[in-house]
Amino acid sequence: MVGSIAFDAVTSPFGSRDRMLGGSAVHFSLAASFFTDVRVAGPVGDDFGDEELAVLHERGVNTDDIEHVEGGQTFFWRGRYEYDLNTAHTEDTQLGVFGDFSPKLSSASTGAETVFLANIQPDLQREVRGLCTGADLVGLDSMNLWIETARDSLVKTIGGVDLVFMNDAEIRQLTEEPNLIAAARKVLDMGPRAIVAKQGEYGAALVTAERFFALPAYPLETVRDPTGAGDSFAGGFLGHLASQGDGAAGDEAVLRRAMTYGSVMASYNVEDFGTERVRRLTREEIDGRFEEFLDITAIEGVPAG
Amino acid sequence: MVGSIAFDAVTSPFGSRDRMLGGSAVHFSLAASFFTDVRVAGPVGDDFGDEELAVLHERGVNTDDIEHVEGGQTFFWRGRYEYDLNTAHTEDTQLGVFGDFSPKLSSASTGAETVFLANIQPDLQREVRGLCTGADLVGLDSMNLWIETARDSLVKTIGGVDLVFMNDAEIRQLTEEPNLIAAARKVLDMGPRAIVAKQGEYGAALVTAERFFALPAYPLETVRDPTGAGDSFAGGFLGHLASQGDGAAGDEAVLRRAMTYGSVMASYNVEDFGTERVRRLTREEIDGRFEEFLDITAIEGVPAG
Repeated sequence: MVGSIAFDAVTSPFGSRDRMLGGSAVHFSLAASFFTDVRVAGPVGDDFGDEELAVLHERGVNTDDIEHVEGGQTFFWRGRYEYDLNTAHTEDTQLGVFGDFSPKLSSASTGAETVFLANIQPDLQREVRGLCTGADLVGLDSMNLWIETARDSLVKTIGGVDLVFMNDAEIRQLTEEPNLIAAARKVLDMGPRAIVAKQGEYGAALVTAERFFALPAYPLETVRDPTGAGDSFAGGFLGHLASQGDGAAGDEAVLRRAMTYGSVMASYNVEDFGTERVRRLTREEIDGRFEEFLDITAIEGVPAG
Repeated sequence: MVGSIAFDAVTSPFGSRDRMLGGSAVHFSLAASFFTDVRVAGPVGDDFGDEELAVLHERGVNTDDIEHVEGGQTFFWRGRYEYDLNTAHTEDTQLGVFGDFSPKLSSASTGAETVFLANIQPDLQREVRGLCTGADLVGLDSMNLWIETARDSLVKTIGGVDLVFMNDAEIRQLTEEPNLIAAARKVLDMGPRAIVAKQGEYGAALVTAERFFALPAYPLETVRDPTGAGDSFAGGFLGHLASQGDGAAGDEAVLRRAMTYGSVMASYNVEDFGTERVRRLTREEIDGRFEEFLDITAIEGVPAG
């Protein structure tokens, strides 16, 4: 996966942290590491050291393609959540080494079968996609900033990937279509085989040419820090897919289980600040919550098993 | 059921109607009529005649308790929906005969086993609840207006019912609790055995003391008129429950199927203006969409059956 490695400062109604390891690359990698081998690529500065690397190594994430930029400063984000935890209010963004990042990937990375292009500039995403000659399954995330400033490039990039992960509001914005189902079909027309519409506290929906699937979010009474939920979702989703071998992305049952593992990982991510909850997570807890999802979605009142 | 009988004028991006039969009583009764015998109570004016009654009689709804107020005018509502169909903008409301409505119910109505108190003033809802001595299952709907102007009365009324149907935003507003699950638990503490949180395009959630269930909305590409969706939902829900005999409200599997029938009826309701789609609906179409819900929610990719 290629994305941002960051330090985050977050304030929510449940507390605050001045400086935590964060960024899409970190949240995705930690989540995916429970399912498959993960290599992470992205730039860091002089303020990124062994302590931060250790968080990734604890979970077996390969960091050989993390690029240390001499004299640079790691990407920094400061945000605040109100009582309504759905919206992050950005208070400060310092791009640092991310300002002129150009991806350099080892052959081990370009040979990866499954690739995730986290939310970075779409030209960069397309460049990485081009480098990854071994990939047979590529997922992409994006955001309103790129829809507004680089729409044509984003559409072109979407045309070269298999899976698109975006918020439902972003899917509507990208297609200028208020109905989510119609909007997702327009994104499918750009090329991908599946669209994952992230819906925050309402869960997520999966739209393919033939089928529709929707999953509620896990019913948490306390959400401490939503930062990274989308990347944890993508990590659980693609991590599970990668573990299921060739052709998994064409199997609706596998995709639906991937949606569920994604939701499980996102739900744990938001239970505590930054990576705190996922760092102490176990595979048994993941499987337990997967079973709970079977229970809370079963119309007949008993899990499908 | 007791609620409003109305004439609605609606404009949406898909057209407009100047004067349609509407109101919570009408939408609820038509939906419930596919599952059980329905009696409707509420006031109408001189402008309400045989043509309007025929819409209810076509579906076998008993209208003996519809009260004709001499010289009065039927409740009138004019609203408009933007491209985002989630919010109704009210342009005109004329209470008419609803201004000083005092429910008078026949013994057939007070003996009903299942009662729905649609969104009317909570003092009136409690008065009806008191009259319905035969009821062993009572559902209630409400809205932000009563939370803001009659909160204490609403809380008291909720204490005397079994099921609460409210929008998720209203459940949060009533309890001053931003987290929906925590908010729903606070409403459970007021007395009901189950809370149905309506979530518009995201579906609905069912919260009881022991369990949680959530169901997406049916994936419609075209929503023409959302007016009455909530009442159609409640009609399908309570209609199914009423058809399942004593103790049905305590059976999680029955409640979940009721959620699904409610979602089916709401989805058909919004496909066309006012009552137009539900009037030409068949039981076969209802059962077909119920099966589709099993499909779109099945995590394992095949319906639970």
